[in-house]
Amino acid sequence: MKKLHDLKANENDLELLVRIERATLLSGANGQNYLILNLVDPSGRLEARRWMVNDYDKEHLVPNQYIHLTKAVTSEYRGQLQLKINEYAVLTENDLTKFGFKSDDFFVKAPLDVEKHYQDFKKLVGGFENEVYRKVTLHLLKKYEKEFLRYPAAIFIHHNVHGGLFWHSYTLVKNILAIRDNYSYANIDWELLIAGAILHDLGKVVEINNIGANDYSLEGKLIGHISLGNSQVVQAAHELGFIDYENGRQNASVTLLEHLILASHGKHDFGSPVEPHTIEAVILSTFDNLDARIYRTNEEISKVNLFSWTPKLPSEDNKMFYHHFDKVKAKTKK
Amino acid sequence: MKKLHDLKANENDLELLVRIERATLLSGANGQNYLILNLVDPSGRLEARRWMVNDYDKEHLVPNQYIHLTKAVTSEYRGQLQLKINEYAVLTENDLTKFGFKSDDFFVKAPLDVEKHYQDFKKLVGGFENEVYRKVTLHLLKKYEKEFLRYPAAIFIHHNVHGGLFWHSYTLVKNILAIRDNYSYANIDWELLIAGAILHDLGKVVEINNIGANDYSLEGKLIGHISLGNSQVVQAAHELGFIDYENGRQNASVTLLEHLILASHGKHDFGSPVEPHTIEAVILSTFDNLDARIYRTNEEISKVNLFSWTPKLPSEDNKMFYHHFDKVKAKTKK
Amino acid sequence: MKKLHDLKANENDLELLVRIERATLLSGANGQNYLILNLVDPSGRLEARRWMVNDYDKEHLVPNQYIHLTKAVTSEYRGQLQLKINEYAVLTENDLTKFGFKSDDFFVKAPLDVEKHYQDFKKLVGGFENEVYRKVTLHLLKKYEKEFLRYPAAIFIHHNVHGGLFWHSYTLVKNILAIRDNYSYANIDWELLIAGAILHDLGKVVEINNIGANDYSLEGKLIGHISLGNSQVVQAAHELGFIDYENGRQNASVTLLEHLILASHGKHDFGSPVEPHTIEAVILSTFDNLDARIYRTNEEISKVNLFSWTPKLPSEDNKMFYHHFDKVKAKTKK
Amino acid sequence: MKKLHDLKANENDLELLVRIERATLLSGANGQNYLILNLVDPSGRLEARRWMVNDYDKEHLVPNQYIHLTKAVTSEYRGQLQLKINEYAVLTENDLTKFGFKSDDFFVKAPLDVEKHYQDFKKLVGGFENEVYRKVTLHLLKKYEKEFLRYPAAIFIHHNVHGGLFWHSYTLVKNILAIRDNYSYANIDWELLIAGAILHDLGKVVEINNIGANDYSLEGKLIGHISLGNSQVVQAAHELGFIDYENGRQNASVTLLEHLILASHGKHDFGSPVEPHTIEAVILSTFDNLDARIYRTNEEISKVNLFSWTPKLPSEDNKMFYHHFDKVKAKTKK
Amino acid sequence: MKKLHDLKANENDLELLVRIERATLLSGANGQNYLILNLVDPSGRLEARRWMVNDYDKEHLVPNQYIHLTKAVTSEYRGQLQLKINEYAVLTENDLTKFGFKSDDFFVKAPLDVEKHYQDFKKLVGGFENEVYRKVTLHLLKKYEKEFLRYPAAIFIHHNVHGGLFWHSYTLVKNILAIRDNYSYANIDWELLIAGAILHDLGKVVEINNIGANDYSLEGKLIGHISLGNSQVVQAAHELGFIDYENGRQNASVTLLEHLILASHGKHDFGSPVEPHTIEAVILSTFDNLDARIYRTNEEISKVNLFSWTPKLPSEDNKMFYHHFDKVKAKTKK
Amino acid sequence: MKKLHDLKANENDLELLVRIERATLLSGANGQNYLILNLVDPSGRLEARRWMVNDYDKEHLVPNQYIHLTKAVTSEYRGQLQLKINEYAVLTENDLTKFGFKSDDFFVKAPLDVEKHYQDFKKLVGGFENEVYRKVTLHLLKKYEKEFLRYPAAIFIHHNVHGGLFWHSYTLVKNILAIRDNYSYANIDWELLIAGAILHDLGKVVEINNIGANDYSLEGKLIGHISLGNSQVVQAAHELGFIDYENGRQNASVTLLEHLILASHGKHDFGSPVEPHTIEAVILSTFDNLDARIYRTNEEISKVNLFSWTPKLPSEDNKMFYHHFDKVKAKTKK
Repeated sequence: MKKLHDLKANENDLELLVRIERATLLSGANGQNYLILNLVDPSGRLEARRWMVNDYDKEHLVPNQYIHLTKAVTSEYRGQLQLKINEYAVLTENDLTKFGFKSDDFFVKAPLDVEKHYQDFKKLVGGFENEVYRKVTLHLLKKYEKEFLRYPAAIFIHHNVHGGLFWHSYTLVKNILAIRDNYSYANIDWELLIAGAILHDLGKVVEINNIGANDYSLEGKLIGHISLGNSQVVQAAHELGFIDYENGRQNASVTLLEHLILASHGKHDFGSPVEPHTIEAVILSTFDNLDARIYRTNEEISKVNLFSWTPKLPSEDNKMFYHHFDKVKAKTKK
Repeated sequence: MKKLHDLKANENDLELLVRIERATLLSGANGQNYLILNLVDPSGRLEARRWMVNDYDKEHLVPNQYIHLTKAVTSEYRGQLQLKINEYAVLTENDLTKFGFKSDDFFVKAPLDVEKHYQDFKKLVGGFENEVYRKVTLHLLKKYEKEFLRYPAAIFIHHNVHGGLFWHSYTLVKNILAIRDNYSYANIDWELLIAGAILHDLGKVVEINNIGANDYSLEGKLIGHISLGNSQVVQAAHELGFIDYENGRQNASVTLLEHLILASHGKHDFGSPVEPHTIEAVILSTFDNLDARIYRTNEEISKVNLFSWTPKLPSEDNKMFYHHFDKVKAKTKK
Repeated sequence: MKKLHDLKANENDLELLVRIERATLLSGANGQNYLILNLVDPSGRLEARRWMVNDYDKEHLVPNQYIHLTKAVTSEYRGQLQLKINEYAVLTENDLTKFGFKSDDFFVKAPLDVEKHYQDFKKLVGGFENEVYRKVTLHLLKKYEKEFLRYPAAIFIHHNVHGGLFWHSYTLVKNILAIRDNYSYANIDWELLIAGAILHDLGKVVEINNIGANDYSLEGKLIGHISLGNSQVVQAAHELGFIDYENGRQNASVTLLEHLILASHGKHDFGSPVEPHTIEAVILSTFDNLDARIYRTNEEISKVNLFSWTPKLPSEDNKMFYHHFDKVKAKTKK
Repeated sequence: MKKLHDLKANENDLELLVRIERATLLSGANGQNYLILNLVDPSGRLEARRWMVNDYDKEHLVPNQYIHLTKAVTSEYRGQLQLKINEYAVLTENDLTKFGFKSDDFFVKAPLDVEKHYQDFKKLVGGFENEVYRKVTLHLLKKYEKEFLRYPAAIFIHHNVHGGLFWHSYTLVKNILAIRDNYSYANIDWELLIAGAILHDLGKVVEINNIGANDYSLEGKLIGHISLGNSQVVQAAHELGFIDYENGRQNASVTLLEHLILASHGKHDFGSPVEPHTIEAVILSTFDNLDARIYRTNEEISKVNLFSWTPKLPSEDNKMFYHHFDKVKAKTKK
Repeated sequence: MKKLHDLKANENDLELLVRIERATLLSGANGQNYLILNLVDPSGRLEARRWMVNDYDKEHLVPNQYIHLTKAVTSEYRGQLQLKINEYAVLTENDLTKFGFKSDDFFVKAPLDVEKHYQDFKKLVGGFENEVYRKVTLHLLKKYEKEFLRYPAAIFIHHNVHGGLFWHSYTLVKNILAIRDNYSYANIDWELLIAGAILHDLGKVVEINNIGANDYSLEGKLIGHISLGNSQVVQAAHELGFIDYENGRQNASVTLLEHLILASHGKHDFGSPVEPHTIEAVILSTFDNLDARIYRTNEEISKVNLFSWTPKLPSEDNKMFYHHFDKVKAKTKK
Repeated sequence: MKKLHDLKANENDLELLVRIERATLLSGANGQNYLILNLVDPSGRLEARRWMVNDYDKEHLVPNQYIHLTKAVTSEYRGQLQLKINEYAVLTENDLTKFGFKSDDFFVKAPLDVEKHYQDFKKLVGGFENEVYRKVTLHLLKKYEKEFLRYPAAIFIHHNVHGGLFWHSYTLVKNILAIRDNYSYANIDWELLIAGAILHDLGKVVEINNIGANDYSLEGKLIGHISLGNSQVVQAAHELGFIDYENGRQNASVTLLEHLILASHGKHDFGSPVEPHTIEAVILSTFDNLDARIYRTNEEISKVNLFSWTPKLPSEDNKMFYHHFDKVKAKTKK
């Protein structure tokens, strides 16, 4: 059986074993509906189409369903590979074992040893001098450990893989540590900044509906991860005694940490209720944005051929990006 | 002794007893500093200036200080009355009694019976069918009762008087009740809307530094009343058992109530981390804005003569407003 | 014969009697054109599609045409019901009588007693002390009475039903009267405000092409209802002698009334040539906007199931709205 | 006696005869008020300051007052000449004759033969084929002839001289005629465009308070010249029978002409209630803007030395302009 | 054989000889791809569609290909004519001769005598007093003469015909010369302005990929014609000795000329790295924009019937334009 | 003799030796001019004021002038120290030696070994595989070596010290190298990115008028450092043969490098004629902005006391920043 990653244009009669990540029903101009299906198998992801959708299709071609494709066909449209679905059979997770797979194989995973680096995190934070940053961070890591290590960082935009939330947070901490020496002249509280980097997206474990991550939860849509994350910090600070229950006045470090989370999108326009008033908030919001942009633009560039252009990217104000460099070829050349 | 409200231009040798609400130090082009002092006495407010400021002035002409003015002088500048401070003596609250006053006389108060209408509130809310809206609202009213009934709704912009926060919230509830019949055709949850109207600005009891309200607290500057208020609701919901501690999933009514608070500024640009996704959020954010605008523009219009223009109002995109109608004269005429 | 309001998904062989409100020709990707038809019958509205459009269809499936459908089919697309048109016969207004209907049955009407409330209006205005507001308003009500009572308030956005213009204006007046006591402290000329509320959209009787309201007139597209309405007031004021013909200087009340109409969209961006410079203009533009938003969002929410989301709403910056409350069920529960 | 135009920095003991165009009272940081006075004499304009203003000054140093200055002093501030007022005597218009002047000498006038070119206008318009453009334009020229030939085009921004409104309109017509051949390929109705150019700013004769032009009228502030001008056209069209009184439907040429006036600011943001929907509106709004920008930037450039920069210009998004070329020197050199 | 310009709706069995200007592959909702083909023949342009695209079509229906159509069919969609391609044969340039054509016939050409007017240009520039403007302009005209006279001014937006770049530049110079007398009062360096008008778009000869102009070059996409044009001027100035190689300081006239090119889009938002700081830059950027807008809106208006509306024009903020005047009919009428 | 860095508020009779960095003449409300003087001595910077400015002052208190102050007085205004200048004597550079100083002591210098790190740069670049990035960068470093190592990175905003341009560029390269491993998964050409980081602000050696850096040059004001820097690269590429002289087509690496410089401000709004179309441009523009923001906000925070707020910062959308952490105290505590 072939794998998604190995497919080329104009193949016929393909047999494939895949999980559906997302399914979008659209209406064609001929009065027929069709489905855009985002598929994943152990080798990676591919977008597929199911034409002439009937009621059975609507019911079974849904997120998190495993299916066994036969007679599938590939084609190329504007330089991107596309799969056309013909015959298919619906599988249970148990069925996967017959083919020698387990369900976990059908999730793309972050390319780093999450468990190992998580221990690094805890050690780093455990050494903080500031009691608030240390205790609040460790408290929340422990409380949401399972989700923090497994959730994606987003549904579409960036690090949308198992462990992506950790990967994204980890990269921010690494970037921050990497530039620390270059800014030794400045009045930056690095402990605050690292705590903020770890916690800034923790609200996503409530914002995203579940580990399958095919939609936002009601909390996600009506509150958003920024305010959800802020509430997590407030709740932890209450439990740890850093907020005066009676009048709401709180330890200044809690306030600074909340500010970091609330300001992490940098601008009101991007959903931050407050904009940066500290250097740490400037740095965190910048790296948060940069990491997401690198991930997304690289993802899109990688889908098109060398010396080609991506489609217009919504995340980049509808600008197209140019694929001018291939790290594999560059390495090989050496 | 004269009262601020009775002063006219070009009076001399005035004796006055006042409290300083705010003091702003500015630097003149002659290298001399001067102070803009916002004064209040039992009759109302007036802006004053202290020229040629010395160190003694800087130390004593500060917010919440009571002073006894003598030889003060009034003038008119661009149609607005201004007071020039000459001799003065610093008073303690005790000194006020000698003049037959008590400190409370030197705060402008909301023109409604706060205590009485507060009881109406509690009764209204007590009758809610929805358990979440009823319990969360009553819980928070009780917790912050003292501040909720006495704080202003803002430092500068609107309802900046003792009891102003209650006044503003009360007006919103009254407006909502008033239009309810006109929208009986729509799917509006009026209980949710009323709960939101009562709670939407409760974060201000933490945002504003104290009942004197001459500045924002650190929490106010770095977090803001919208997120502070949201945390109050979350905290109440936790205590009342409406949020699952483990995974953060919560009763949908809590989510809808949080949404109302978070969206109460209507637009990202005005500091709301989410924009309205429910009719109730549309109505609340509209009335919140309308009530503040009516208060502020009326306040400014009242300071200038009939058939005159206000200065440019920062809260109205620097537009000037026209004073074309006087409710007192209109009434008298009848 | 079934009614549009009673249809459910997946019905076949339907017979229906409808009027076409709007018809939009689109081009399919297979080179075939199709029509989106907005249908209405005595029970309400429904969107339909006609695939594979031929010249006969183009000529006959047009706005304000009555048709008799047979063999029509319903389906569901993204949670919304859709009708597919198969066989049909074209009817004249006379033909309707055979089926026991008259043409007026095929227009959605505002859910209020227009004639009765119109008399309230005239009485209210007739009692105005201000001669300008009284005379100008009555003059224009009389002049455009027929259209004012029958036109919709807009083609798409809000109150797009027979009598919708009156309904919208009436609701604004009712809202204004409802909050009057809450703002008794402010210098608001309620007569001016009510006159403005009645007249602010009167330009729509010229802006909209006809009572069928399927398009804008040339005047509507090139001038717009704000300027058309302003000209109506100017014209009335000229006829009533409130404007000096020679030099254009005018009674200040006329100027204030014109300002209310011109500023009724609140912002330059929304087509107002001047932005509010009076409290009355602030209130009117706020209620105008609020009433339209409540109507539109409620309309969209009502089309989707409880606990579902609307599509992205262009009138709400492409935000989706959440249907979390149903007034009928809420009432029934009690 | 010297003239304003001949003054240089650091002159003392000056005697001058001037009219005050505008007077702005400001408050100094020393608690003293001072006046910025815009002066004009037969040679031109100059900005002056009156320090330590007393009540007599406030009453007499007002717009349109003639005064006889003695002991005045000049200085230079940031490369611009400034006049300091010391002793002065108030004059009546009659007093001017003693000095050999008449009041008209104290108004800056547009540098063209207004009367002569006005005849050109009427001849040009009189030859129009389109009856609406011809009759409406001639009707309005006749009605507002006196003001049209004498008013400035604006108070501050551009062509703020006697006859400036005519000068600006005339330049637009000349520019339009000048490019006509270059766009002979396009479907442009040049008669419509010329009528629009003549009438587009006619509302300014109501917007500006009087020929002295030191403020806007109430109509100007609350309605604006765009809507005032539109009403002038509508009124003319009514009188000439081009609008159906009953239903408001009108001759399409009237609609197109109104559109030109309403869209003459080009963008909603600049106060146009509609934006261009015709080529003619594109051209007129472009030339309106261009003519004002050339006038203003040239005016500012002319105030500073060659190879110097103007202050930040509010009309140019606060950009400074560079004076790199002097037409007089360039000519002389030849 | 028919010509594109003569086609009407609903013609069948057409034989046509055309060149493909652009080909856009789109994906239909039925899983079939189709092509939008922009065709041109000696009579003009027309948009065509090829449904059910196969691999042969993809390979042969490409830009700059000549094809011989048979059995083509026309239809009308929303008031615009459309061609459906059925049978076709691919032709070489040589094949054209058999039909009595040459390849040059299949390019739309600017409607002016380019060569003749180019001589006017050189003569005009040759007479400049300013050595920098004269030499730099002549140097660059000579260097890029071939492309300057043949390239279009843009791919889509305006003057997208052979010689369009010259036509656009020529019109700007003509417009500038035409208004010169109207601004004789201003400090405008007309030589600078004319030089800027000639050179401002010269970067397009690198920005556009080739004379066929069906795409932008890599330089065009990553650098843009403004910066490319600026480099052309800098390079010329270096070669002519107007820039000091060592320190980069340069003749002020070079700087002013660069400013004109860099500021020619008028606003940062439209891609100008600097905004106008000279009157000349104000004028050039205004005329550049005006000329493009007139061309584009006239082009779109000409495609729809008299008294009809264009589709929404992206270049005009998605506003529709009204075709109310036809220069041919207007002339004929006379 | 005291140093600027050691001054405290309310000192009198001070003797100081300083250089004037900038001098700004302002007009006071009393008709007197005064000067804001930015002073620097071997210990650092301080803002001073000279009241009651006379002609001698205007002539001698100018940028780059050395002066010997006596009887100077300090005061505090809004938490910031201010110096009042009384008696002073003008010094030549020679005079400095009498006091044991040389002119170089009176320039603030970047806190790194510029010469040493410059050698690192050259070595790093010398090892590039890509010939274009290697040769162009080394060519330009050599050409502008002297200025590149000594110029500031800006006049006001950031790194406005001797060697600041190098410091800023060096920090960017260090940051880029520091995060390289964290993005090993992405298709990033690190050589291109480093070359861009080194060259992106090189245009500033022409933009800033001279090493004293008290103003922008004419080139700086009319062209800007982005376009000036782009021209430097183009010129180098021409000299190195990477651009085809005839047709302007160029080596793709040159195009990519130009793109990096042109897009380095990230947005049109900030003066970039093109916005990022490559990952490298995203990273460079982000780090450019981040480095400037850290520098400026830290600079402002350092001027106010711990737990105080800065004034509104124009570079941060007029937001105030909070000084909550002091790196020295934090270190000491340990």
